[in-house]
Amino acid sequence: MGTPADEFHLFDTTLRDGAQREGISYSVTDKLAVARLLDELGVGFIEGGWPGAMPKDTEFFARARTELSLRHAQLVAFGSTRKAGVAVADDKQVRALLDAQTGTVCLVAKSDVRHVERALRTTREENLAMIADSVRFFVEQGRRVFLDCEHFFDGYRYDPGYGLSVVRTALDAGADVVVLCDTNGGGLPSSVYRTVSELRGKLGGEPRLGMHAQNDTACAVANTIAAVEAGAMHVQGTANGYGERPGNADIFAVIGNLTTKLGRQVLPDGCLETMVRVSHAIAEIANIAPDTHQAYVGASAFAHKAGLHASAIKVDPDLYNHVDPAIVGNDMRILVTEMAGRASVELKSRELGLDLTGHPEVLSSVTEQVKRREAEGWSYEAADASFELLVRGELDDAPVTAFTLESYRVIVEHREDGAVVSEATVKVRVRGERVIATGEGNGPVNALDAALRAALVRHYPHLSTVDLLDYKVRILEGSHGTGAVTRVLVDSGDERRSWTTVGVHENVVEASWRALVDALTYGVRAAAPQAAAAAR
Amino acid sequence: MGTPADEFHLFDTTLRDGAQREGISYSVTDKLAVARLLDELGVGFIEGGWPGAMPKDTEFFARARTELSLRHAQLVAFGSTRKAGVAVADDKQVRALLDAQTGTVCLVAKSDVRHVERALRTTREENLAMIADSVRFFVEQGRRVFLDCEHFFDGYRYDPGYGLSVVRTALDAGADVVVLCDTNGGGLPSSVYRTVSELRGKLGGEPRLGMHAQNDTACAVANTIAAVEAGAMHVQGTANGYGERPGNADIFAVIGNLTTKLGRQVLPDGCLETMVRVSHAIAEIANIAPDTHQAYVGASAFAHKAGLHASAIKVDPDLYNHVDPAIVGNDMRILVTEMAGRASVELKSRELGLDLTGHPEVLSSVTEQVKRREAEGWSYEAADASFELLVRGELDDAPVTAFTLESYRVIVEHREDGAVVSEATVKVRVRGERVIATGEGNGPVNALDAALRAALVRHYPHLSTVDLLDYKVRILEGSHGTGAVTRVLVDSGDERRSWTTVGVHENVVEASWRALVDALTYGVRAAAPQAAAAAR
Repeated sequence: MGTPADEFHLFDTTLRDGAQREGISYSVTDKLAVARLLDELGVGFIEGGWPGAMPKDTEFFARARTELSLRHAQLVAFGSTRKAGVAVADDKQVRALLDAQTGTVCLVAKSDVRHVERALRTTREENLAMIADSVRFFVEQGRRVFLDCEHFFDGYRYDPGYGLSVVRTALDAGADVVVLCDTNGGGLPSSVYRTVSELRGKLGGEPRLGMHAQNDTACAVANTIAAVEAGAMHVQGTANGYGERPGNADIFAVIGNLTTKLGRQVLPDGCLETMVRVSHAIAEIANIAPDTHQAYVGASAFAHKAGLHASAIKVDPDLYNHVDPAIVGNDMRILVTEMAGRASVELKSRELGLDLTGHPEVLSSVTEQVKRREAEGWSYEAADASFELLVRGELDDAPVTAFTLESYRVIVEHREDGAVVSEATVKVRVRGERVIATGEGNGPVNALDAALRAALVRHYPHLSTVDLLDYKVRILEGSHGTGAVTRVLVDSGDERRSWTTVGVHENVVEASWRALVDALTYGVRAAAPQAAAAAR
Repeated sequence: MGTPADEFHLFDTTLRDGAQREGISYSVTDKLAVARLLDELGVGFIEGGWPGAMPKDTEFFARARTELSLRHAQLVAFGSTRKAGVAVADDKQVRALLDAQTGTVCLVAKSDVRHVERALRTTREENLAMIADSVRFFVEQGRRVFLDCEHFFDGYRYDPGYGLSVVRTALDAGADVVVLCDTNGGGLPSSVYRTVSELRGKLGGEPRLGMHAQNDTACAVANTIAAVEAGAMHVQGTANGYGERPGNADIFAVIGNLTTKLGRQVLPDGCLETMVRVSHAIAEIANIAPDTHQAYVGASAFAHKAGLHASAIKVDPDLYNHVDPAIVGNDMRILVTEMAGRASVELKSRELGLDLTGHPEVLSSVTEQVKRREAEGWSYEAADASFELLVRGELDDAPVTAFTLESYRVIVEHREDGAVVSEATVKVRVRGERVIATGEGNGPVNALDAALRAALVRHYPHLSTVDLLDYKVRILEGSHGTGAVTRVLVDSGDERRSWTTVGVHENVVEASWRALVDALTYGVRAAAPQAAAAAR
């Protein structure tokens, strides 16, 4: 205690409170992987779970002792203060918490007198004794104690005197930090700032206070920052804001704001730029699609629809970004959209490693094609791979074309017995050879995909490692008197990377086919870097 | 102007700034539908788009004049101040804005001197003249003018004097409200509060100021509330926070906070409870999966993992919710289940003219089916006709079933000459007769639709007047260990009305078939009101 790093705490509770999010169910191995990522991010404390209450969490702490070696973070176990009317040393959950063998424990206590009386069904005095006894017990066992005051803000509004005595009791008993929790998440920054300031005034000195915010007013990040501005020196958050109901304070946004807006370095040197990677990796483990629009770390967090200002953005990116995306490990992406002009095509190409400055005729031709196709319903803003193929097709002297199509046929049948089956046949020419192949699938597009792979894989064995990851369909209403068209986006990937392609046609199967063709062509190119390099 | 409703403005820009979100591409019909929903929500102003700059928006304002009749909101057209060195009356975009014929226009102006000099490439004086001339012009034409100060906060930090003169110039020229925009979204509530307060002090009196926040620090909602606390009387937001990069201020959270936290009634009586429905319906139109964890309106916004406190929550729900979910049209869900409960099934049935109070067994059975199907990916929120058929199927002694399916087959071929053709054959029994029919179409679903109609129309001539109006597809990620499924929504209509049906299956063709069957069955029933009435 008392080390410089101890002046400000970044406390992550992804693995405890964040795991309350509906749909999240980590295995112990998942939890270990998340803990390693959070350590790379550089947080000071990782709350790993509630030993005793959750069997998985008991196992997590046991395995962590041998399997985790953390560089930056300390592991924290969470538990409750002793039960009413039970001696601390006899409380089974207290025992389990001790047995987790973490240097720091985080105890939760009631701080709203209504919860004390109506949910705990005990007296205000007994609750204070539970807090004092429990804190003292762990301090005597050589542990550092953080105390979470559940429902603090609602309780303080209802009965400020009781809230104050809970905080005082915990500090007097030896708690290192008392954490004020907006458990129901109804706070606003102004009220949080006011309450924390007032409490500090009443406590006097430099009380070590923390903040735990929930996002029910969409203000969890702002409330956390407001508490820091009012003097809190410990903030709790979760990766990507995962948590119960609308979630917790997103620790990435909290870190981004503290660092770039308040000028506080809260991560070790070199850690800030891991944010995007850590955010996406944890989303993968949680099996939740990353929020592309998340502040700081989302794929679209710095994406500009190019439009009229593309040239201005090119000259002065700092005029259009609130921070430099690179410092958090993100990129500025220029979207090629309906309003596409030469500047945005050039910028986007450069982003993909294709310099068009020496090729004005290619730039013109690509810009023309993008404009025409976007008017027809194509959208390159999400389909970088299709855009890259388009540019390379114009740039290359000898473009890599994986195959040419002769014909395909897809049949979907709902049979008399109720079974629904899909079957596709493709006839293609691959490197001079005519190949006919058939595939089945749980839908027409899967069947086509299976048939096309079957036709190509002998010539392009790398395709056996390419998977179709996601498939999106959108019907676009016709404009200017044409009929409706269907736009399909396909996400594909191999062991190394993933890419998105687009196809448009009035027929959903043909639109899917076009996106599939780009997807597999890109997959073939990805495996043939020498060909791609030679073609530049 | 000067009406009581004019004291505080809720200004929605879902259709203008919100449409900048990556992946959103509204048709004009979509925009009209969104405008109707926002009007039901009760906002005061709906910014519809940028006539002149976007052809779709020009068309939107033209169609809005005949096709929209708004109860609460006024439509606002957006545009830029005049170009540098051009007389207002000669500026083409100014003309286009005037031609949109809205009572209120929202003009955007540069207010950061660096953007004036480096992006606009004009002088600070000319920029002020552009603002003064443009505001005066529209006021003289009888329009109310709001002026958006782009990059206001960054500009004010860099050169407060220039920011102040931009605001003064606009107000002096007759702008009703000057809107301070945090265009790059880097603000925090404390800095926004400080800047708005300071600006108000310098301006003196009661200047009519607005706030437009972006979510790049995850504080857009908080920044909006902070501006109101500092005296702003006009707030701009978008449905579900849709917008460029991390988006705009989510208007639902802004409304929720203003109403339940600051005690300001910002919506007409009875409108607050439409929030959940409007939020989800706009997400459907935008074809973006609703954020289940969104504050106030998300399906999980008030969902508690039933843990230790389940019984306490049941006894004292107000101790565990920051507001009563019902006031915003949401529910508290204690157990992890899908949305449907008996109460909402009963309510929705009544809405459709089906009273289930005397049929508790029907209510149970429908609730069960809806729960099971929603777990599989069906969604009855947008598909009233499918829901009505489900309820009637349980209610009716002799349900009207238009036909039974024996089998169908659909073929899609991409032929050697490049032509793509779709052909479907259906085998059905209609009123005891076995009918085989074939249809062609520009896609598999059109072909199936054509074949099914051909089979049915002799027995149900009314179907010749039923059209398939729109078709939406969404791939739903698998849940509970199942693979991805496809959900199809079909809008159909005859001369009198339109209706929506839903189908779900892993195969897109079968999912479409299910939605089509409901669509045509509903069409048959619509033509046979006596049968429907008899069945009640």
